[in-house]
Parts: sequence; structure tokens; C-alpha cells
Amino acid sequence: MSAKQIYIAVVGVGGVGKAFLSQLEFLRQRLSKQNPPIDLRLVLARRSNKQLFSSSWEALNISTVVEQLEKSGAPPSPFNETIGQLARAPGRVVLVDNTSDQGIAQQYPLVLQRGISIVTPNKKAFSDKIDLWQSIFSSAANGTGSPSNGYVFHESTVGAGLPVISTLKELVETGDEVTKIEGVFSGTMSFLFNSFQPLGGGGGTFAAEVKNAKELGYTEPDARDDLNGLDVARKLTILARIAGLNVESPTAFPVQSLIPKELESCKSGDEFLQRLPEFDAQMDKVKNEATQEGKVVRFVGSIDVPSKQVKVGLEKFDASHPIAALKGSDNIINFYTKRYGSNPLIIQGAGAGGDVTAMGVTGDLLKVIRVLH
Amino acid sequence: MSAKQIYIAVVGVGGVGKAFLSQLEFLRQRLSKQNPPIDLRLVLARRSNKQLFSSSWEALNISTVVEQLEKSGAPPSPFNETIGQLARAPGRVVLVDNTSDQGIAQQYPLVLQRGISIVTPNKKAFSDKIDLWQSIFSSAANGTGSPSNGYVFHESTVGAGLPVISTLKELVETGDEVTKIEGVFSGTMSFLFNSFQPLGGGGGTFAAEVKNAKELGYTEPDARDDLNGLDVARKLTILARIAGLNVESPTAFPVQSLIPKELESCKSGDEFLQRLPEFDAQMDKVKNEATQEGKVVRFVGSIDVPSKQVKVGLEKFDASHPIAALKGSDNIINFYTKRYGSNPLIIQGAGAGGDVTAMGVTGDLLKVIRVLH
Repeated sequence: MSAKQIYIAVVGVGGVGKAFLSQLEFLRQRLSKQNPPIDLRLVLARRSNKQLFSSSWEALNISTVVEQLEKSGAPPSPFNETIGQLARAPGRVVLVDNTSDQGIAQQYPLVLQRGISIVTPNKKAFSDKIDLWQSIFSSAANGTGSPSNGYVFHESTVGAGLPVISTLKELVETGDEVTKIEGVFSGTMSFLFNSFQPLGGGGGTFAAEVKNAKELGYTEPDARDDLNGLDVARKLTILARIAGLNVESPTAFPVQSLIPKELESCKSGDEFLQRLPEFDAQMDKVKNEATQEGKVVRFVGSIDVPSKQVKVGLEKFDASHPIAALKGSDNIINFYTKRYGSNPLIIQGAGAGGDVTAMGVTGDLLKVIRVLH
Repeated sequence: MSAKQIYIAVVGVGGVGKAFLSQLEFLRQRLSKQNPPIDLRLVLARRSNKQLFSSSWEALNISTVVEQLEKSGAPPSPFNETIGQLARAPGRVVLVDNTSDQGIAQQYPLVLQRGISIVTPNKKAFSDKIDLWQSIFSSAANGTGSPSNGYVFHESTVGAGLPVISTLKELVETGDEVTKIEGVFSGTMSFLFNSFQPLGGGGGTFAAEVKNAKELGYTEPDARDDLNGLDVARKLTILARIAGLNVESPTAFPVQSLIPKELESCKSGDEFLQRLPEFDAQMDKVKNEATQEGKVVRFVGSIDVPSKQVKVGLEKFDASHPIAALKGSDNIINFYTKRYGSNPLIIQGAGAGGDVTAMGVTGDLLKVIRVLH
């Protein structure tokens, strides 16, 4: 039996992109052997300043494409032109956006309207202004709009490969009432607070732990990009919208920044880190208060659905609470629902890293392949 | 735009079946309003001694069907005849098997070959002899066999509505290496051991806790059906097979029964419960040994994939282990994989009960609806 072709366009070949390509090659081999076979063809590889496009629709070699892109990539066409070219493929096309590019995110509605599906860990597309969210889902075959062949999946935008979004969607779509979602949604914040106030005592000063987390590679190049809480706020925005709340943007609800007011004017991440110890006494106070109550401090996000309250910031948890017992840089997400009662449905594990983020993307690609006709 | 009809046949209208019907009505209303609309039509409701079949293919009223079945149900036709009738429906058909009937499970290959999809919490079909497993999946469109329109999903066979099977499948299908799966897979055993040896001390004698669990409705009518470990062994069989191990049957690996040898000959569950206190000293010894090591005893199942070892029984866990911290009758499943490293991917929550079991079935129905052409 002849194989059905599905054309894959990959944008972004950094850490997640490379891990995805490795999983794509695994998937390509597996699907080529199934009955009926599916022929996954990589036809576009693109990064900010270069692209390789197979105008003959023959497959690029997945294993060598990053190298080939470096060597012989052409300057990229404007993104909307590339989409126009992809829309002329002789079969279904899936765009895999492994970037965090706002410009590409803005084009998602157009991509979907052209019948091209999207799988992506790009949070920007789903956590920005609600107009963009509505525009994306009114253009998607699995959204609210007119039937097309453009499906969109974005599991890795929250908790990387952990089944967070698929689980929440299933709760909602099968008619459960989600009352509250609460968790640690940032690997960086998880590592930082599990080090700052480990269960059982100990931990260094806050500034020292931030420095340590940065040195171990757990923070963004500029740690302020983690400490401002925006990354967590973006994830909460996405989950709240799936739970049915019309959250306008990730700045439309209270988000506690761990950047002291006095340091907001720092010119660089380095200057910030140098001055952060001046505020250790404040954070020690927070920690000691928690200790006195038999609790620990964690940086969490929560969504109270009935009251439509979304917030991000420091909270205290009893030692026996699953959020207190988290280890390393793990994420934990607790879904409180009518069906699940007093004990939440909990999902826990690594919520960052190339391989697990790519796994969410590859899993989404599989979902698209299954529904594409 | 005219709605696509999908015909739903429900077998089993007990606790799970009734909860499913309520979710089906929710889903029917939602899908009738989506674009393009889908018209879910309940055309068969059946229990062991009665059935209602809509030979005109007009929809039965979901909200009143159980009552109607009681009042005006006909004696059921042989199951294979019913399948033959369903196969003549003027559209795609999904069989929802809410029973734990071995006889129906045996017919799954036939059902799938007739192009009828199956969603079910019936463990028997997937945990019996491996021949049946192979026969089912070689007949399924999402299996290894020839293309058909018969899809099969069985999320609720392990951990009820918790996303256990979908997560394991995604790990495997995206090329992760699952090294170990370990967890508490029985709500009964969870409740029993969380009561027998709570974290932090206390708990009654084993026999008293079994009696209490039975009185609170956490056990099967005959508690021996939980204590023999077979229910957990069936779940482990299913997961091991998905992880790639050819487990012959749920009795093909070590399963520790908590029914003392001397009580295997008891004539009734009541006699068993009366005599169980004779063995409290044995269980106290197990508990005290664990306490001395700073641990607690739990009834767990584990699959070591590289060494192909599957086993079910009592194990000791450090107080800091997530399995030790479990509450109430929750299940917990830890997936250790290459990508997730030393901290497993954890899924936790209620793993039994009508509503959450039905949720897994309804979620599977949604998956089938999405892939059906």
C-alpha cells in the first residue's frame, strides 16, 4: 500500500528544535513501517537567519539537516511567503514552531486558515492578548471556527512534556467542573525554592541560591527573566483560558515579582545579582515566618475558577502538602475538580529541558497525524 | 451544515455505566453545537438480561434510557448477533463496554473487524492471555493490523480517568526509554495501607482495617477479590505490554496475595474476615520492621523494563517517597524514563469510582470521534 505523505516544516533548531528533530527521525522510521504507512517528509528547516526549503517536496535528511542548514541555508524568505509556499504542498502540512518568537505566533491564524496544522511549545501565541488566542482558535479545525484542516496543539507550553494541557482539556470536555488549579510551573522557581528552603531545613540565602541556580544553568541568561514571574504568568494565562476564563493577558492579574523595587532600575543582570544580597534579610523573614508555622515557601501559580481569581507569587505550604515535597526542578500541577473531590489529580515531573519539551511537541505531532484526513 | 451521525452502543448500566450516560448526554449536547456538528446517537443500551435496540437508528433518550430499559427492555440477543446488527448502522459505530465481562471481551476482535470502535474500562480484554491482546490489536485501526475503522481505547483499565495509558503510550511512541513503572494501582489497597500504617504513625490491626475498608465500601463485596492481588496484576499486565513486554497473563509473574495460605480454603468472605485476626501478628511484624527502618509498607506493582521483571506485592518506602505520602484511596503511578532522569513523571489521584472511571471512557470516546473519518 502506498504511503500517505505528511509534510513537516520545522522552525527553530536550538535545544528544543534539535531534540525534536531526533524524535522526528524516530517517528518517521516507525510510521514508515506501520500499516498503512505514513511518509513524514521534512521539507523546511528554518532559523532566524537561514532556511532550507525543499521546493521539490522531496524529504530533507533529518539527521543532517542542522549541519546542512548551517552550510548551505539561504537567507529566509518573509514568514508569510514561506507559509504561502508550504500551502502549495501536495498533501497535509504541519508547522513545528520550536521558537518563542512573537512574530511567528502572530501569524498562526493565517497558517491555520491556509490548512496548515501547528504544533509548538511557543507560549507567546497562547498567552498574549486574548484577541490572538481567539483568532487562533477560530481558525483551527479543533477550535471554535469553521472547518479546516489546520489543527493546533501546544502541550509543551505548560509543563513541557507533562500531560497538563491534554488532561485539563479532557476534564473540561467531558463535563467535569474544575474548581482550582494550583502548582509550581517553573523549573527555575522550583529549583530555587527547593534549595532556599528545603523540606527538613537548611538552604542558603536567597541571593546565594539565585547565583547558584544561574551557575548550574537553571535560570535564563538574565535571572530577572525568571524572577519577574512573567513566565509563570504566561502558563497560568493559558490554563485559565482552557478552564473557561477570559484572561485578557498575562499582566491582567496579580503577579508577584521577586525583583525588589529598588533593583528594577539595574542596568544589567550582573548588577542585579551583585545588589540582590541587600534584600536577603527580607527573604529570610519570609522563610522564618513559614518555618515557625511548620511550613515552607514556594513560588506558585493558582487559578480559582468559580471566583475567576488568577495569581502568581509566594505561598506557604504545610510540610505534608505535595507542593512542599517537590524535588529538584520538578513541576507539579494539582487539578481540583468536582469529580476528583478533596484529593486533586496531580501531575508531576520535569517541566523544562530540551528532550521533555520536544516530547510534548512530538506527541502533539502524533495527535495531528491521527486526525488529519 | 448537516451533522455527522455517530452511533453509540452502551453495554453495562451499573455505576460506571450510569456515570458514563450522564457524561454522554453532556458530550452530545456540546458536539451538537460545534462546527461542524456531530450527532451522537445512542442506539443500544444493554445489560445482562435486557436490551433496548433502536432498529430505526433514531436516538434513544439518554436521560431516561436506564429507566426505559428496566420497563420495556427485551431479552438480549446473543452478543455476536447484536454486533452484526450494529455493523449495519448507516454510519460509524462505537461500542462502549462498561462491564467487566470476559465473554464480551473475547468478542472484541470480531467487533473491531466489523469496523466498530470500542472504548472500555473492561480490564479482562487487555490483561488475559496475550493471544487475546494480540488479536485485539491486530484487528484495530490504531493497532498493528490491517486498516479498518475499528479503533480501541481503554484508558480506564488502569487508574480510572487518570491519564496513565495515554502518557505511557506517548512516552513509548515518541521514542523515550521507559526503564521502570512503579505505583499503587488499587484504590482499595491504597486506602487499606494508608490506614494500616499512616505516615507519622498509628493505624489499627490489619484485620480491623480490612473490616473497616469493607464497611466503608472501599473493597469488593468479597474483600478477598482485592487482597489476592489479581486486580493489580491485571493492571500491571496491561502497562507492561504497552511498555513492550510480552507478558503471557496476569499469573505469569510473582503476585503476593494477602490471603494467608491457611485461609485459602475459607468458604465465604465472612468466614475469611472472622478468621483474619489470627494473622494480625504477622502483619504487625511487617509493619514494625518498616517502622524501625523509618519506612512504611505499601502494596505496589512494579515493572522493570530492561530486566523484564514484573511483580506485585508489599514493599517498604522511605517517608519522603511520593508513594509513602499517598492519601485516602488515591493511586500513584511513577514512570521512570531516560528523558525524565532520576525524578519520575508522576500521575496521582483517585483511581476508582464511577465518575472518574466514566471520565476515562468519555475521554476515549472523544479520541475515537476525532479520528473517525
